[in-house]
Amino acid sequence: MTEMTETASGWLSPEELESLRGRMPILYVDAVPVRVDDTGTVTHVGLLLRIAPDGTVSRALVSGRVLYHERVRDALLRHLEKDLGPVALPNLPPSPAPFTVAEYFPTPGVTPYHDPRQHAVSLAFIVPVRGDCRPRQDALDLVWFTPEEAASPMVQQEMTGGHGVLLKQALAHVGRLP
Amino acid sequence: MTEMTETASGWLSPEELESLRGRMPILYVDAVPVRVDDTGTVTHVGLLLRIAPDGTVSRALVSGRVLYHERVRDALLRHLEKDLGPVALPNLPPSPAPFTVAEYFPTPGVTPYHDPRQHAVSLAFIVPVRGDCRPRQDALDLVWFTPEEAASPMVQQEMTGGHGVLLKQALAHVGRLP
Amino acid sequence: MTEMTETASGWLSPEELESLRGRMPILYVDAVPVRVDDTGTVTHVGLLLRIAPDGTVSRALVSGRVLYHERVRDALLRHLEKDLGPVALPNLPPSPAPFTVAEYFPTPGVTPYHDPRQHAVSLAFIVPVRGDCRPRQDALDLVWFTPEEAASPMVQQEMTGGHGVLLKQALAHVGRLP
Amino acid sequence: MTEMTETASGWLSPEELESLRGRMPILYVDAVPVRVDDTGTVTHVGLLLRIAPDGTVSRALVSGRVLYHERVRDALLRHLEKDLGPVALPNLPPSPAPFTVAEYFPTPGVTPYHDPRQHAVSLAFIVPVRGDCRPRQDALDLVWFTPEEAASPMVQQEMTGGHGVLLKQALAHVGRLP
Repeated sequence: MTEMTETASGWLSPEELESLRGRMPILYVDAVPVRVDDTGTVTHVGLLLRIAPDGTVSRALVSGRVLYHERVRDALLRHLEKDLGPVALPNLPPSPAPFTVAEYFPTPGVTPYHDPRQHAVSLAFIVPVRGDCRPRQDALDLVWFTPEEAASPMVQQEMTGGHGVLLKQALAHVGRLP
Repeated sequence: MTEMTETASGWLSPEELESLRGRMPILYVDAVPVRVDDTGTVTHVGLLLRIAPDGTVSRALVSGRVLYHERVRDALLRHLEKDLGPVALPNLPPSPAPFTVAEYFPTPGVTPYHDPRQHAVSLAFIVPVRGDCRPRQDALDLVWFTPEEAASPMVQQEMTGGHGVLLKQALAHVGRLP
Repeated sequence: MTEMTETASGWLSPEELESLRGRMPILYVDAVPVRVDDTGTVTHVGLLLRIAPDGTVSRALVSGRVLYHERVRDALLRHLEKDLGPVALPNLPPSPAPFTVAEYFPTPGVTPYHDPRQHAVSLAFIVPVRGDCRPRQDALDLVWFTPEEAASPMVQQEMTGGHGVLLKQALAHVGRLP
Repeated sequence: MTEMTETASGWLSPEELESLRGRMPILYVDAVPVRVDDTGTVTHVGLLLRIAPDGTVSRALVSGRVLYHERVRDALLRHLEKDLGPVALPNLPPSPAPFTVAEYFPTPGVTPYHDPRQHAVSLAFIVPVRGDCRPRQDALDLVWFTPEEAASPMVQQEMTGGHGVLLKQALAHVGRLP
């Protein structure tokens, strides 16, 4: 999960946030962007192509931190707009309940999710998007995969920190796990 | 729940269907049409104004039978188009799991749901609609209510067979039960 | 899915049920028996070893038909007792919503689920069981698998009609898909 | 929500935690203890009788903070044992997904939930308990209510911060909202 401009919020300096990451769980959201047909069936899953600080290339879901005094669904919309651009037209789910909760631990192996920087607890949502996606910021590209491609070993091994498992859980939730 | 033209499907004559209603559970879908804002928050719930065979006026959710060899989501789309018209632009949920299951028993009191004609088991979904709704067939009108209005005693008492309870469950599911 | 003694219910003769299977969707329940630890984490999944009418051996989930005037949770309990014995002590979920809906079509390929005999729509539930399981009737044995074993190709290929996919969806739902 | 001995964890001093409450969302869990019958139907809901720091008496759900490097389900079990005692025998749900997410804002009116001390985001779970409940610490008593009683105005007005709404959402989720 890549952190961006949350210091712009003014509530926590980068140093303060850094200090907290090792002392309390940080609340995140993960979004799985999908294309659906007229009946709501998921036809494609969108993955971001990212370059991590250490230069390695990976595919990732949309994710980011929930800020102080920000509703979860506002955080979800903010991160979707940040990563997919302003005309993606995401259909946020009407229910506040995530389809799963991904617990990223700094210690590998406690859960399927891992984030060496922090203990992050992420509410994960599946979000149909209807418009054009134009990745911004540190995302190089957004590629749409069929469910079969998304669950394939080739795509799975390009995802890190447990995003591959989270993606398969999303496919299972919508009845499209191959 | 009002039955319409399923005999057009050719699989069951009206007499055969009538005979079956008292001998096995019949599969239905219920849809709660909603308006949502940009963040997915439900702002309004749509209720149909219906006149029952005995002349009484009531408000109802969209509902109907699932046909042989018809997918649940195809049945959902068919009944939404039948009741809301062809340009309602419903966003069917990507997950096949209903938010609840309403079991309509011919005997009152077994569950909160009641259908004197049959034992119907209905998969209930919340469906955001983006377009114009133009009720057709036996529906006189479609009226949008705020969550507060929808849960009010006045609207609740105009709903029969347990649709009022189902509506409150839908509001609870989207975090809008007053 | 194996049909047993539902004619004992007296509502439908075997001939009537046979005739209906090709003309309307039949309501089923599927149960995934699991063992959980103190924190609710799934540690094992229980699969039945069955011999199908044609003599082939396969592993299966607990499943069966919902009868007329029977609540879904009563059907679930009845089929669990039938397949796991009277002292399995299943903890049925408090919510009536299934974790997914499996649509078994007589035509292969419409959905991941297939039943050559009929169009069955099954509400699928994950059910922790605390007691001793003593398979009865046509089940030869019940074997407990770890999530990793259950999702392995060896076990998956012993499941038919889409039960392997349904099992993986259940593992994903409880956060244990490898 | 009442905070207790999280300083025993050693990760945050009370002063540090106090300082953080106004600067980032704090992760919580809420648990709705229920009694169920053999079919999983909820028959009763358990509410704690609490005395708040200002001396007012209120009824509350089980709730508390998730600590650093603690899994959500471990936090849930810890708070259940803290409030219901060591022999309550709670059946934690196998799925990590909460039935809803309650967002407690320090500003009233943003959501139905309110906590003047902080911005807390709480994952809410329904937890059947099978054993004896012996409230400890600051809880005076635990009282079991039928769904009808729990949703009644008398009980609802004894709950603060939105716990009454959360309780009704839980009843709706299990199909027992009157």
